[in-house]
Amino acid sequence: MINIISEEEIMFFDTDCGGVVHNIAYLRFIETARTRLTERLGMSLKEMTKTQLFPVVTRTEIDYRKPAKLGDLIQVEAHVESFERVRFWCQFRITRPSDHALLITSRQSLALVQMPQGRPCRLPKEWLEQYPELTSKPKA
Amino acid sequence: MINIISEEEIMFFDTDCGGVVHNIAYLRFIETARTRLTERLGMSLKEMTKTQLFPVVTRTEIDYRKPAKLGDLIQVEAHVESFERVRFWCQFRITRPSDHALLITSRQSLALVQMPQGRPCRLPKEWLEQYPELTSKPKA
Amino acid sequence: MINIISEEEIMFFDTDCGGVVHNIAYLRFIETARTRLTERLGMSLKEMTKTQLFPVVTRTEIDYRKPAKLGDLIQVEAHVESFERVRFWCQFRITRPSDHALLITSRQSLALVQMPQGRPCRLPKEWLEQYPELTSKPKA
Amino acid sequence: MINIISEEEIMFFDTDCGGVVHNIAYLRFIETARTRLTERLGMSLKEMTKTQLFPVVTRTEIDYRKPAKLGDLIQVEAHVESFERVRFWCQFRITRPSDHALLITSRQSLALVQMPQGRPCRLPKEWLEQYPELTSKPKA
Repeated sequence: MINIISEEEIMFFDTDCGGVVHNIAYLRFIETARTRLTERLGMSLKEMTKTQLFPVVTRTEIDYRKPAKLGDLIQVEAHVESFERVRFWCQFRITRPSDHALLITSRQSLALVQMPQGRPCRLPKEWLEQYPELTSKPKA
Repeated sequence: MINIISEEEIMFFDTDCGGVVHNIAYLRFIETARTRLTERLGMSLKEMTKTQLFPVVTRTEIDYRKPAKLGDLIQVEAHVESFERVRFWCQFRITRPSDHALLITSRQSLALVQMPQGRPCRLPKEWLEQYPELTSKPKA
Repeated sequence: MINIISEEEIMFFDTDCGGVVHNIAYLRFIETARTRLTERLGMSLKEMTKTQLFPVVTRTEIDYRKPAKLGDLIQVEAHVESFERVRFWCQFRITRPSDHALLITSRQSLALVQMPQGRPCRLPKEWLEQYPELTSKPKA
Repeated sequence: MINIISEEEIMFFDTDCGGVVHNIAYLRFIETARTRLTERLGMSLKEMTKTQLFPVVTRTEIDYRKPAKLGDLIQVEAHVESFERVRFWCQFRITRPSDHALLITSRQSLALVQMPQGRPCRLPKEWLEQYPELTSKPKA
């Protein structure tokens, strides 16, 4: 399993006047976790800058279950769900350890895109070979 | 049909170093369109501030089809897809009129939540009565 | 005088849990106004994309006088304060017409930078020639 | 001296299509550092939520010296510059340890504001008493 856990503390700029974290802010937390996850696959931010090969989000699904609040310490669990030919899926869960609340569940599909042409590329053969259990059943 | 169209021009702060609009930025455009849409249902931002009854996003699905770039003029089409008992669904399409490109499709479900208690409320009877064609088939 | 006025409506994502607009959000409003202002100088976003010559903020000063709130309609007045050899200054005022409140005053200096090298360039001669009243007294 | 150092890694959402960190993103880094700094003064985010007494930015000055890039690890040094009767000043330096570059210098003044009334409050007597060296020379 390819997975990581990252942590965040809720800042003022994450909240809105409803008194809770704004729905868009969670996607920053998810991006940070996803970045650590793709590092585990051998793609670091610095490497991407050189190769100009970027993982690009092609779909996001996110369910808002409970809201986080100012000052909350939260955990973002991320793992790779599956590899397909030209994209891969990641899953995320955001929890608040202090009360064991499940706040967010989310999944994203990503494609590898060669910039600046914007050309989608096949996933590296090594990913598929190294994690056969993640490649067998491509998901729509 | 309850629908609106809003327009945006892509600013630097909407883009990232991949050279295109960052995936999170589109959700601001969608929120702006959704705000105009809920105004059409009789819920203005100023009204919400008084009543503390807020439409809260409970799920987002978003597909990234083509990227927008710096300086692009884009249109966000929004309409109400359906009303259920305690939530409603909205649909969004973001297009770039200059080349007729379809950039983004998205749908969101929203619940009406009474703050600061965070209590979910039934949708107003008037919504369901005024738009019976949107209320017949509740969607999971 | 080189000036423009742009308008914004305060969205949820502009606010924080203090109940007012977050201090960082005003800088997006200012960037949007500044973009319209530099268009007036002949530098459109689309043009910049081609030339890769970008106006880069080198200093921001911003005073927060009164807070805006959810749903407020605000105006951003922007004008060029002065031209120097390699940078120019812009001034901004954000007001709320409904009660004539002055919310924000700000000034920014910008340099023209040729990317991707990051090389600062002299301001176009035409700017200095066309607006001699703005070029006489360079400011620290 | 009341000071802290926080660390950040530059994510995609921090950058813009100029290829470097967007000027607004640094203000999030500064807010995170400032939050840790005010915790050192006894004001935690959780405490603020209860008391509704918030430190509100009344002025920001920020100089952009060198740009950070995707994947950079940066450090934000923050310290309290001085206490006045109803506001205090903080100073910030953002550096990139890998090449010892100084990227950003900034200072902010903050007032303590009792929400929801928006009433400015005097700084706690303990702050002034505990740090007499920071209180002697109020700055305009």
